[in-house]
Amino acid sequence: MKLTILRHDLNEAIQNVSKAVSSRTTIPILSGIKVDATFGGVTLTASDTDISIQSFIPMETADKTIATVERTGSVVLPAKFFVEMVKKLPHEQVHIDVGERFQTMIRSGSTDIQLVGLDPEEFPVMPTVAEDQVISVPGDLLRDMIRQTVFSVTTNESSPILTGVLWNLHDGSFKFVATDRHRLASRVAPVESKDVRFSNVVISGKTLSELAKIVPDQNVMVDIVVAESQVLFKLGNVLFFSRMLDGTYPDTSKIIPTTFKTELVLNTKLLSDAIDRAYLLSREEKTNIVRLSTMEDGSIEISSSSSELGRVTEQLDASQLNGDPLRIAFNSKYMLDVLKVIDSEELFIGFTGAMSPIIIKPRDHDNSLHLILPYRTTN
Amino acid sequence: MKLTILRHDLNEAIQNVSKAVSSRTTIPILSGIKVDATFGGVTLTASDTDISIQSFIPMETADKTIATVERTGSVVLPAKFFVEMVKKLPHEQVHIDVGERFQTMIRSGSTDIQLVGLDPEEFPVMPTVAEDQVISVPGDLLRDMIRQTVFSVTTNESSPILTGVLWNLHDGSFKFVATDRHRLASRVAPVESKDVRFSNVVISGKTLSELAKIVPDQNVMVDIVVAESQVLFKLGNVLFFSRMLDGTYPDTSKIIPTTFKTELVLNTKLLSDAIDRAYLLSREEKTNIVRLSTMEDGSIEISSSSSELGRVTEQLDASQLNGDPLRIAFNSKYMLDVLKVIDSEELFIGFTGAMSPIIIKPRDHDNSLHLILPYRTTN
Repeated sequence: MKLTILRHDLNEAIQNVSKAVSSRTTIPILSGIKVDATFGGVTLTASDTDISIQSFIPMETADKTIATVERTGSVVLPAKFFVEMVKKLPHEQVHIDVGERFQTMIRSGSTDIQLVGLDPEEFPVMPTVAEDQVISVPGDLLRDMIRQTVFSVTTNESSPILTGVLWNLHDGSFKFVATDRHRLASRVAPVESKDVRFSNVVISGKTLSELAKIVPDQNVMVDIVVAESQVLFKLGNVLFFSRMLDGTYPDTSKIIPTTFKTELVLNTKLLSDAIDRAYLLSREEKTNIVRLSTMEDGSIEISSSSSELGRVTEQLDASQLNGDPLRIAFNSKYMLDVLKVIDSEELFIGFTGAMSPIIIKPRDHDNSLHLILPYRTTN
Repeated sequence: MKLTILRHDLNEAIQNVSKAVSSRTTIPILSGIKVDATFGGVTLTASDTDISIQSFIPMETADKTIATVERTGSVVLPAKFFVEMVKKLPHEQVHIDVGERFQTMIRSGSTDIQLVGLDPEEFPVMPTVAEDQVISVPGDLLRDMIRQTVFSVTTNESSPILTGVLWNLHDGSFKFVATDRHRLASRVAPVESKDVRFSNVVISGKTLSELAKIVPDQNVMVDIVVAESQVLFKLGNVLFFSRMLDGTYPDTSKIIPTTFKTELVLNTKLLSDAIDRAYLLSREEKTNIVRLSTMEDGSIEISSSSSELGRVTEQLDASQLNGDPLRIAFNSKYMLDVLKVIDSEELFIGFTGAMSPIIIKPRDHDNSLHLILPYRTTN
């Protein structure tokens, strides 16, 4: 393999695939990035077996030559060093020349690097994915759907299926659900799916967070291919493969109340600021407990207390307050997580009693729903 | 104590003094900020016994009222919570009212806080500092002098005196020296000192780093008062007290060579970039060893190698190269630390052999000098 390539394009491709390099792998070849050069272009690949990312660098764009390949071939280069070094090379032209036993020379300006390369034959092969189930989703929407649900997955590895986000697609309605048994987040969006439908597709929350980072800022369409045990995301020249999580995701539809005994409409920002201040005190008690009470004058009170520090009390006007008076306690951190992702100036909160799930929804639309279980406290 | 104060000014003063609050103190009162209100203004104080910071908030400026004091008095409030909370209060007007047993009410907009205050009598008294030894230094210069030396102090607590920066002032020449026995940094600047002189004043590197953070960005003069065992910095409305370190700082003048066998003049940026690339490989070997060799054509070569990864070689043109040929090894991290603070386009490096100290100086002026001991290697 012998080629010359522009540093900027090489660097961009490396940054994309580097998200799949595991930092604590026991399989040495997986701490590398595979470089494949053909006369059609250069492909970089990284994999930690759960996710694999492939980035293709074409030989040229309309206005410039990016790469020239003198001799085709492949090599695996140590990722950590390669990622850092390419960023810092002194010249826009980078020459890579792989010799005997994958000994690799990288030359750029007055910099000369000899690297111990590894055998590309040892690198895992990319999964083959049948492309009959394909949907297209705008990149911005995909990022939002991830952001609005992924914080509710569990980090507790003893419930592996709950470390993922559940995907369902029926009748053109694409739905994400995440829960850690104490809270639940769901987001739905219409997609042009023709006759694609699937259920119980569960993808690791960590993987989705990594994916969100490489979805381009320009709002391009992302093709999502759902196959047997893999999901493939096509982002322009980048292919992102993710393994699905094994197991059956629990049915959460029954725990979501649809009628309420107390209903509130509040300004999202004002509620968020008030809970944030109450949280400051509650976190000193480690429990993060904050109380919400309806008042006779139609306002609400948010409060927290700490035996050592004191007490914070917040008064907040409600745009609407209907139903029974209520006094309820909840984890303020969970509530703040929800308020951060609610994309509506006002929000609806529904209660069915001090011991029953709290439902939070944006007021402008029905695209998302959040549930938080209250704390059972005695006062 | 009962007062009303503008949130913005209270917050600014809190942020300044909070640098002196120790996060891991065994003396509960020191985890607080003392608030003193008189009819002349409000003073905040924090102390971790090594450093103490006092910030004064005047009752008014030319164009606005900042504080109105209804009842004078003092209280100590829990710093961590107070610092975070004042930042987030909903209204510009903050009312503070201290009642029985230092129970404190803070009210701002619709937020109501009850805080358990502590007895201000238990708070340490600020040191009294005799003001006969005073110099004035521009804030920018003081920050530069700290930044250009403080990275060379030791973090090894077994040599406490070397965790500090040595200050000397003689004949209007103000000098900072820091060393960890492997490297040394010194910086000198002329100051208008009248007949002030001192020697063996040693101030903790950590303290100076904290000080540098609160020196205002506007280039105002900082008054420095050097007393028996304390140094006091006056930064406008902020007083910063620091204890001096006990002990005698070693004499470092004799280890600095003044004649050289090999002399180099190099572009600072190009050298820094080349060593940075060589460092990337050397850090994988943990030692950070990089080699510098003079070449017959008058250029120099920078290189590093790792048995596992390979080798980086950099060619660099020298603006000047005089004297004996040389091959020397050093800690590239130490050299990068120096190159970061050299404020001159070109720099001078002097060598007196592969086993002797390396001297680095800016080429434009003689204000700073850095020394790095080489590695003794066999090849």
